[in-house]
Amino acid sequence: MSGAEPLDAGLLAPGRAGGAAEAATGDRAFLQAMLDAEAALARAQAALGLAPARAARDITGAADAAGYDARSIALRGREGGNPVIPLVADLTAAVAPASAPYVHRGATSQDILDTAAMLVAARTLDGVLTDLGRAEASLARLAAAHRETVLAGRTLTQHAVPTTFGLKAAGWRSLLLDARDRLCTVRGSLPVQLGGAAGTLAAFEADGADGPALTWAFARELALADPALPWHTLRTPVADLAGALAFTAGALGKAAADVLVLSRTEIAEVSEGSGGPSSAMPHKANPVRATLIAAAARRAPAQAATLYASMAAEDERPAGAWHAEWEPLRDLLRLVGGAAHDAAELARGLRVHPAAMAADLRLTHGLIVSERLAVVLAPRLGPARAKALLSEAARRARDGGRPLGEILAAEPELAALIDAGLDPAGLTDPAGYTGAAGALTDRALERS
Amino acid sequence: MSGAEPLDAGLLAPGRAGGAAEAATGDRAFLQAMLDAEAALARAQAALGLAPARAARDITGAADAAGYDARSIALRGREGGNPVIPLVADLTAAVAPASAPYVHRGATSQDILDTAAMLVAARTLDGVLTDLGRAEASLARLAAAHRETVLAGRTLTQHAVPTTFGLKAAGWRSLLLDARDRLCTVRGSLPVQLGGAAGTLAAFEADGADGPALTWAFARELALADPALPWHTLRTPVADLAGALAFTAGALGKAAADVLVLSRTEIAEVSEGSGGPSSAMPHKANPVRATLIAAAARRAPAQAATLYASMAAEDERPAGAWHAEWEPLRDLLRLVGGAAHDAAELARGLRVHPAAMAADLRLTHGLIVSERLAVVLAPRLGPARAKALLSEAARRARDGGRPLGEILAAEPELAALIDAGLDPAGLTDPAGYTGAAGALTDRALERS
Amino acid sequence: MSGAEPLDAGLLAPGRAGGAAEAATGDRAFLQAMLDAEAALARAQAALGLAPARAARDITGAADAAGYDARSIALRGREGGNPVIPLVADLTAAVAPASAPYVHRGATSQDILDTAAMLVAARTLDGVLTDLGRAEASLARLAAAHRETVLAGRTLTQHAVPTTFGLKAAGWRSLLLDARDRLCTVRGSLPVQLGGAAGTLAAFEADGADGPALTWAFARELALADPALPWHTLRTPVADLAGALAFTAGALGKAAADVLVLSRTEIAEVSEGSGGPSSAMPHKANPVRATLIAAAARRAPAQAATLYASMAAEDERPAGAWHAEWEPLRDLLRLVGGAAHDAAELARGLRVHPAAMAADLRLTHGLIVSERLAVVLAPRLGPARAKALLSEAARRARDGGRPLGEILAAEPELAALIDAGLDPAGLTDPAGYTGAAGALTDRALERS
Amino acid sequence: MSGAEPLDAGLLAPGRAGGAAEAATGDRAFLQAMLDAEAALARAQAALGLAPARAARDITGAADAAGYDARSIALRGREGGNPVIPLVADLTAAVAPASAPYVHRGATSQDILDTAAMLVAARTLDGVLTDLGRAEASLARLAAAHRETVLAGRTLTQHAVPTTFGLKAAGWRSLLLDARDRLCTVRGSLPVQLGGAAGTLAAFEADGADGPALTWAFARELALADPALPWHTLRTPVADLAGALAFTAGALGKAAADVLVLSRTEIAEVSEGSGGPSSAMPHKANPVRATLIAAAARRAPAQAATLYASMAAEDERPAGAWHAEWEPLRDLLRLVGGAAHDAAELARGLRVHPAAMAADLRLTHGLIVSERLAVVLAPRLGPARAKALLSEAARRARDGGRPLGEILAAEPELAALIDAGLDPAGLTDPAGYTGAAGALTDRALERS
Repeated sequence: MSGAEPLDAGLLAPGRAGGAAEAATGDRAFLQAMLDAEAALARAQAALGLAPARAARDITGAADAAGYDARSIALRGREGGNPVIPLVADLTAAVAPASAPYVHRGATSQDILDTAAMLVAARTLDGVLTDLGRAEASLARLAAAHRETVLAGRTLTQHAVPTTFGLKAAGWRSLLLDARDRLCTVRGSLPVQLGGAAGTLAAFEADGADGPALTWAFARELALADPALPWHTLRTPVADLAGALAFTAGALGKAAADVLVLSRTEIAEVSEGSGGPSSAMPHKANPVRATLIAAAARRAPAQAATLYASMAAEDERPAGAWHAEWEPLRDLLRLVGGAAHDAAELARGLRVHPAAMAADLRLTHGLIVSERLAVVLAPRLGPARAKALLSEAARRARDGGRPLGEILAAEPELAALIDAGLDPAGLTDPAGYTGAAGALTDRALERS
Repeated sequence: MSGAEPLDAGLLAPGRAGGAAEAATGDRAFLQAMLDAEAALARAQAALGLAPARAARDITGAADAAGYDARSIALRGREGGNPVIPLVADLTAAVAPASAPYVHRGATSQDILDTAAMLVAARTLDGVLTDLGRAEASLARLAAAHRETVLAGRTLTQHAVPTTFGLKAAGWRSLLLDARDRLCTVRGSLPVQLGGAAGTLAAFEADGADGPALTWAFARELALADPALPWHTLRTPVADLAGALAFTAGALGKAAADVLVLSRTEIAEVSEGSGGPSSAMPHKANPVRATLIAAAARRAPAQAATLYASMAAEDERPAGAWHAEWEPLRDLLRLVGGAAHDAAELARGLRVHPAAMAADLRLTHGLIVSERLAVVLAPRLGPARAKALLSEAARRARDGGRPLGEILAAEPELAALIDAGLDPAGLTDPAGYTGAAGALTDRALERS
Repeated sequence: MSGAEPLDAGLLAPGRAGGAAEAATGDRAFLQAMLDAEAALARAQAALGLAPARAARDITGAADAAGYDARSIALRGREGGNPVIPLVADLTAAVAPASAPYVHRGATSQDILDTAAMLVAARTLDGVLTDLGRAEASLARLAAAHRETVLAGRTLTQHAVPTTFGLKAAGWRSLLLDARDRLCTVRGSLPVQLGGAAGTLAAFEADGADGPALTWAFARELALADPALPWHTLRTPVADLAGALAFTAGALGKAAADVLVLSRTEIAEVSEGSGGPSSAMPHKANPVRATLIAAAARRAPAQAATLYASMAAEDERPAGAWHAEWEPLRDLLRLVGGAAHDAAELARGLRVHPAAMAADLRLTHGLIVSERLAVVLAPRLGPARAKALLSEAARRARDGGRPLGEILAAEPELAALIDAGLDPAGLTDPAGYTGAAGALTDRALERS
Repeated sequence: MSGAEPLDAGLLAPGRAGGAAEAATGDRAFLQAMLDAEAALARAQAALGLAPARAARDITGAADAAGYDARSIALRGREGGNPVIPLVADLTAAVAPASAPYVHRGATSQDILDTAAMLVAARTLDGVLTDLGRAEASLARLAAAHRETVLAGRTLTQHAVPTTFGLKAAGWRSLLLDARDRLCTVRGSLPVQLGGAAGTLAAFEADGADGPALTWAFARELALADPALPWHTLRTPVADLAGALAFTAGALGKAAADVLVLSRTEIAEVSEGSGGPSSAMPHKANPVRATLIAAAARRAPAQAATLYASMAAEDERPAGAWHAEWEPLRDLLRLVGGAAHDAAELARGLRVHPAAMAADLRLTHGLIVSERLAVVLAPRLGPARAKALLSEAARRARDGGRPLGEILAAEPELAALIDAGLDPAGLTDPAGYTGAAGALTDRALERS
């Protein structure tokens, strides 16, 4: 690829441009991971006495991606449909003649590419987990700080009953911890791939190896898991990545969706630490981080679907289902890596505006606690009468723009109850009707 | 719905018509599960002293779906966008006036519908797990019985090197066990939903309840899990179901894809116990079970993607993302339930044809073991010379239709090696080149 | 199916329960369409002298779905993997022995099921087009009525510059007309399927027919298109339906997304004619129609993806790809049919609140027209100075809550310009900065 | 991006590495298209007297992507969430101070990015259409050449009745022509985007422009269509691209699926002109082109689904739905561009093996024409007796491996018919039972 023709400089990917996930998943990183796999295989063979230590050292020394031309390999990969064939040729040419027979010995292209994909996934996930950790720590602080900050709970776009920002942030964090747990499980199970031409390890065994022992040694070299079976067409590791990554994108997307709503000009209950500029309107501060996370959440499920669909892979290596995995898996890692990084920034800088929350709570003139009044009045007036009285009061509050508490305070039918201690003002204070929000927040924050 | 207008009699769904998953997920089953949720809530409230025991008994007694008109509820559900509103009206009308205030007390529609969905999922998964168990047991038997049955390993549609049917069946089983493990994990974590209008449990608490304690009691009544937080818009349970179900569909789809290949008229290495008839060609025996499983595997990923996308749900209840989950979740349960059932039948009845496998292994005149010869001859002749000799021999085998072993036996250059014990016939016997297939099969079958 | 076990009464589908698309796509409707196809084939054969007119009449007379048991056919369809096989058996039994040989004569199951699917699609689309017509007519009225109604244009959730509700409604209508055009194109091209066992029409020709002539006659009987080739595995008609239906769902989803935003309690610039009730909060008026449309728009793309994926169908009839189409196609028709119906209701009843729009325009104290001021002042003060002055004025407007127009009117640097006619109050009036909104609305409304 | 870190050299994309679609869709190409849009806007404004001609020339002269650092723009694009903001800064810095005010004048980022996407799509589609043209021409030649070449028609993996390779190739071509027609329609309608900050063209009009006239002039400069309305959130052009590209991927995928089946070692009825090598098995010739096309067909539907889902874009610019389109649209263009190129190569080089087809037709000992015999014998023997006789003969053919024709010739019950001219050998010749295959092929080939 000439310097004049970058195919991907991140121009269409502001969600991940310049981030750790982008670097960890680039073609250079994949190339290095393939070379790491080849070198580890040679070392594993040497460790079992199947190759000279000198050859393993030679191959390991040659396994530096800086010495290879990714574009040339890509172009030559067209013929056979994968990049391992030309890479093996180049690696073989890069080592001493005596080492050449030990390059890629007994392996099939898929052994190397699948192992490289797992290495790339492992390296990317480590960064994702760090960013999720940063994000959840910020959210924990926000939740604790706003344990008592009341805002409107909204359902189907309408004010429902009050809730707290603490519970909201605790909920976001809870989803992120769920994502973390799922990613950790997958991270710990990413296996090497080793099976040879059709998954029987036959060439290794013909060479004198105990195939499963070699797989174990190969896995140890790369600090990946040792699979029970070659998984050329048993795609559990890829499907598990798909699920955990789609889950994480969705978890991040939930928080972003809420931030986008709460950032609206008319609501303005939160704002991003530093909103993004607009090319045409200098006064705007757009919720850019939330926007980019939302975009990732929109894209991830479809890519995961492609990976799940690739499980139905015929034979010992499928004609298409395997090839269809490579870019979607990378894309998912990038989308989630970028979104996790944006989420860490978003959570750290999020500004919360309790005064705006309080103002919005007053928008319905107290109707936001009508549920509470129904609960309180029903046993005192009978359900039917309570409902009728409240409906009429609500109508007057809505139409007249007067607080429901005032209207009820002046309601003759309630005079006796008020004398007996019923407090319309208190009952219509949203802060008094947050239910178990505080207790739930506390419980959620106990989780670590 | 008049008897004359069945909307779904299973006509377009031969993959699940009449099966347990279909019954467990039908509207009748959902209606019952909603009623079960309402009744359990009343009992939980009674257990905590929040409702009279008599009311709880009354509500429980009225919670039999046979007494309700699902069609009428569906039609009346249009107005509010969900079926719980009219169901609550009907349930309220079905109990004694004194019990009426305790129907749906403090709950929101989503509490009931989400809990019902988890009940339906739990009941359906129990059947799916049974069918997976039947299928994996049959596959274990097949794998053991065919530990030594050699067939062509195929990659990118071409013969590669030999493998065994035992390893193939053990691989299918391994995927099914992976699916089982993921489904079991999800099955064990399915929670009740309880949060009230906006997830704060406020109406329950206004009524005197300790919200979290009530949730615990509610969960105990239904034998579902007690969630740390209301999950109206923290959709971990639904996303986990999506992932595990898409995984299972893919796992079953892998076995089906292989059966379809191996059933082809030209290959005929396996056949379904009882193939399906054709309307036009009485002689055909179609691999119908595998076809229907394959169809389910094609459909499941997209439905899972819709569910993952619904995680990005704004507010305390989203305007669309929640509603978009209901039918795809049911569809996934049905697709997987039907496919698991078909897989159990398929695995039980699968007929394996070793003679056809052996005949197909001979199709390439021994070239299927060319890899082995390269491994054996390279150190003896030098890699370059071995490769040249083999290429020429392969060309002659292919063009002349003669066995590679014969050609090599007559090769002057190999005469000395043959005298020294090299056995071209043995080396070109596919049965001698199955690598670790047997050991891998054994290892895989140890898993339970 | 016993009356006690409805599988689908619409309980989980408030978006389409009771609507025309639901009835037009139910199993009863599919059964009737299959019978219509069988009868039309017999009549076409009779018209070409290939069958006795009496047999064609007999078969046509027996082709009333009321006489068949859809559940029984569904259950018996499991064996062969499709419902046509048992349906043909039942239809054959329902006619006179002399007519029996002319039932399904020469056809394959797929001929009947594909033709039935096209009939169902045609019948459903007719209703969809009617509803789209109702919706676009209402939107045209709204757009014309609100040609001058100014509201905030919003980008990335923030106020940007003013726009008009007329332009917004005209845009929604424009998308609906685009959808209509795409659906009409597809509606007009829906073909019959006729190919026989493997798409060669051989059995018909063995019977004396000119295959293509028979296809033409068959198409004429059903008022469907005459395809150039049998399309058992050339799935253009299904893919075209997928695209046009996904498009329509997206088009409706755009309008719904806007209505949901504008309906928010804090914005309240529009409201549904009759919002839906809430089970817990009697004061709420949820935007239920928009919610259900939004849910359909979330689901349709995944189902369309499954249909597009089914185009890659191997052989003359694929083992799975075809079977995977049936339910997703029906689901798409239902989703779009329900959403179109909801959109017609929504558009007819939508209430627009210009006063709320005007109030929201004032929220940013005039900053919503800062772009305009930059355009006006830059040539007069120089771009840099204009930008600095506006930034400072904007800061003061935002922080002090004072109108930008007032601040500028008091700005000494602008005094001379104001004396010369510059009108800060006029320039900061949102109604004066709607650009070509009116002209664009007019142009859009000219389209019919 | 340092030379050491290529993010995309095509390593994971052998389906498009080095091809025209890759170059036409790379970041360099997008950057150029954005610059082309900026320059065209300046020229259009100059043409209408809104900008000095000198400024338009200056901006046009500076609009060469070679002068810009795509990586730097990408990184700076993170802040505002899109690359246009930093690009405008760089372009402004690259022109004379007097021209600076005319850079991006009145436009919004989305005007430029959407227009650039349409330019990129137009340029890519031109190449795709060329490749489709090459492919269909090759397929037309194959279909004509093999009009009489008989092979087994296969349904649900089993031999059904005979068909011809001519009809098969004509069917593939027909799908490609359908794809071409859909792409051409979309190609001809790709519009410029011009709306300004919120789609009202207000800044242009404040500047003295007639907004719609400016849009027309802008479109003329770029040879794109003039849209009736700004389409910032009316995503018809993107959705239409999604549909046409997913269709094309599916159309190509159908041919690939068939080639993969027919290439199987056991079938070997076709082979790719030059199969791809295998890293481990030198004798293998993999159907690599078909494999890569199949992989593209597996991936395209999910990306199209993401684009369809983005239609539901709220407001005047959505927070996420727009951003989610960029990479999936590019990916679709690349997938289809690569697949079309591979299809052209595949079709040109495809080798057809009639002898293998003939041999496979004999595999069922004549049962492949059992349908024909049923048609012929039923009127002579009565349907029941014909069926019984054929079933018994079929059983004997299958079990004994004897040709059905021989068995029937020796059947006493048929002796009289044979004497009267019935020819069992002729009737069981597959070449005699291809129905309308020839006529259909001819008709399909008439289409141009």
